[in-house]
Amino acid sequence: MTTPLAAKIAREVGTPALVIDMDRVEHNIARIQAMCDAAGVANRPHIKTHKSPLLARMQIEAGARGITCQKLGEAEVMADAGIDDILISYNLIGEEKIARLGALHERAAMTVAADNAVVIAGLPAAAARAGKPLGVVIECDTGRQRAGVETPAEAVALARMIAASEGLSFKGFMLYPTEDDWPRAQRFFDEALAGVRAHGLEAAMVSTGGSPNLKNLGQLKGATEHRPGTYIYNDRMQVAAGVASWNDCALTVYSTVVSRAGPERGILDAGSKTLTSDPGGGLDGYGLIIDHPEARIAKFAEEHGFLDLSRSNSRPNVGDVVRIIPNHVCVVVNMVDEVVMVRGEEILGPLPVAARGKLK
Amino acid sequence: MTTPLAAKIAREVGTPALVIDMDRVEHNIARIQAMCDAAGVANRPHIKTHKSPLLARMQIEAGARGITCQKLGEAEVMADAGIDDILISYNLIGEEKIARLGALHERAAMTVAADNAVVIAGLPAAAARAGKPLGVVIECDTGRQRAGVETPAEAVALARMIAASEGLSFKGFMLYPTEDDWPRAQRFFDEALAGVRAHGLEAAMVSTGGSPNLKNLGQLKGATEHRPGTYIYNDRMQVAAGVASWNDCALTVYSTVVSRAGPERGILDAGSKTLTSDPGGGLDGYGLIIDHPEARIAKFAEEHGFLDLSRSNSRPNVGDVVRIIPNHVCVVVNMVDEVVMVRGEEILGPLPVAARGKLK
Repeated sequence: MTTPLAAKIAREVGTPALVIDMDRVEHNIARIQAMCDAAGVANRPHIKTHKSPLLARMQIEAGARGITCQKLGEAEVMADAGIDDILISYNLIGEEKIARLGALHERAAMTVAADNAVVIAGLPAAAARAGKPLGVVIECDTGRQRAGVETPAEAVALARMIAASEGLSFKGFMLYPTEDDWPRAQRFFDEALAGVRAHGLEAAMVSTGGSPNLKNLGQLKGATEHRPGTYIYNDRMQVAAGVASWNDCALTVYSTVVSRAGPERGILDAGSKTLTSDPGGGLDGYGLIIDHPEARIAKFAEEHGFLDLSRSNSRPNVGDVVRIIPNHVCVVVNMVDEVVMVRGEEILGPLPVAARGKLK
Repeated sequence: MTTPLAAKIAREVGTPALVIDMDRVEHNIARIQAMCDAAGVANRPHIKTHKSPLLARMQIEAGARGITCQKLGEAEVMADAGIDDILISYNLIGEEKIARLGALHERAAMTVAADNAVVIAGLPAAAARAGKPLGVVIECDTGRQRAGVETPAEAVALARMIAASEGLSFKGFMLYPTEDDWPRAQRFFDEALAGVRAHGLEAAMVSTGGSPNLKNLGQLKGATEHRPGTYIYNDRMQVAAGVASWNDCALTVYSTVVSRAGPERGILDAGSKTLTSDPGGGLDGYGLIIDHPEARIAKFAEEHGFLDLSRSNSRPNVGDVVRIIPNHVCVVVNMVDEVVMVRGEEILGPLPVAARGKLK
């Protein structure tokens, strides 16, 4: 059951290996850029998925306005590669972070998100260090219960605080609407926008987020841009969300069956240190084995993936190399220092996951 | 609620940070070595927990016989640091792996585990490359349903296959008994030992495994060594297993509270890309916050840890730096390129997690 490419990957690269199909990567970049263009919303891809300056540049060359990063360390890697329009969609706190943000803003046009006054109070020092205004968007929570102020009134109060802060520029709003309730996001945004306008402020950037939300693209009246991340590779979660097909899944984990200790079980050389324990929001098992879709990756040790083969008519043998679509590709890419690029049956070479390990 | 050391870590290193207390590390190394010495069982620590040649050398200097690795890449890093008695407790398959194993065996005394004939059939090529015999232990499963043959008869058959293979040397048995049924492991081992002896073979290495099994140390009559890993740092799982106290937990994740979007919730800057989604075998939440033990790390985004503060009388503020004991320290260490060494209130500096990212 080992495909010719899988045999070549095992022989030349070794398993487990994270393999990206560049034809699919390019197709995904083009498809979503076209979707954003058609919706009249700029694309600001979140690079947390791939963490690669090369892929970020491909996204920008395809038409993306800039990029989104979740951590300063990611933005530093991207700025090093010459990318100069970066949103950090994260509350940055503490003098270590503020000093780095200031240094970064000297060489790239940075925008940061904030959802509270402590964060905003720290930001003027970064602007002062850079010697130019720093744009700040207010993160708004419209039901997801992640970061973000819970009411339009709080958003307006923070916008006014930003506008009154030396060196800061109020830039707009950042939202991450729940997939099933964009009307709620619209009501929140409309009220927040009216509120800031009453104080003479304008929202130049209104950013929505999430690859699963691509199905709602253009639904928020007033949105200027969208921040999809996972779409470049896709995964089981995106297929489950209805925004990608299996053929859009560009990243596959190649793994060798190293044991068949019992007739109804097997062991892969990809465990929680490769595929991660991310449940993918309640998916069955920890990945889809393309070659044995009825086999279940039931649990993990750190370097073992335990297969339940009880439902499998065709069962893999020791030494077989299988291909796995992970539950959540962003956290899987984060486990490795490089992925392997292929096109068709050809191995092109390694691609560094350059911004991996930048927790800060 | 931020301790002076936590404030210093945040200021000088930044959060999230993985901090190891070297007094506790040294105490853990000494305590478990003494326990092995008292039980008359050699210590062969598993380095998958720390992935650091410096710490491996400290373990050996304290009396460990050699080390255990789970992947070839880990063993390569350790051999580079001069460690020359290494067990790879893993089925190695495929020509890419066998070539590397051979190169490694040229410069270090390698022993490998196997639980099937396909693996054993590949190993002579490694011995041939090294120009010296390669020791092989049979992995035996005594109830855990991980890797390992399920019956003593299979173990005996594989031992005979090893003994008959050019360049291979049958070295003994590797077990990872379930914590509550060492009598079963004893019966399995006794039968397998009698079986190989009937064919003129002897078991020079009989290795048991697991930090939670330290409470059973010495219980397997005939065991020559034990492979504990997590004991060097410990974590919530080890405390739950009754083999460590909170004061034995040497690794702490320092994390900043970046949002308090609602009165009963908060957000840490440590998400699944730092603490991992490892449930720790059914523990409540994803880590213990020392400073707020009644706060629950309820779920994750990639860079957000979501706090449920509903049971907390004292609730952390935005900007507070908290200390977290992770559920499963081995997979958390695996997320970072370096940890930070401290002693008391002093920051000693970074320690590279040199063998991280060696999936193969």
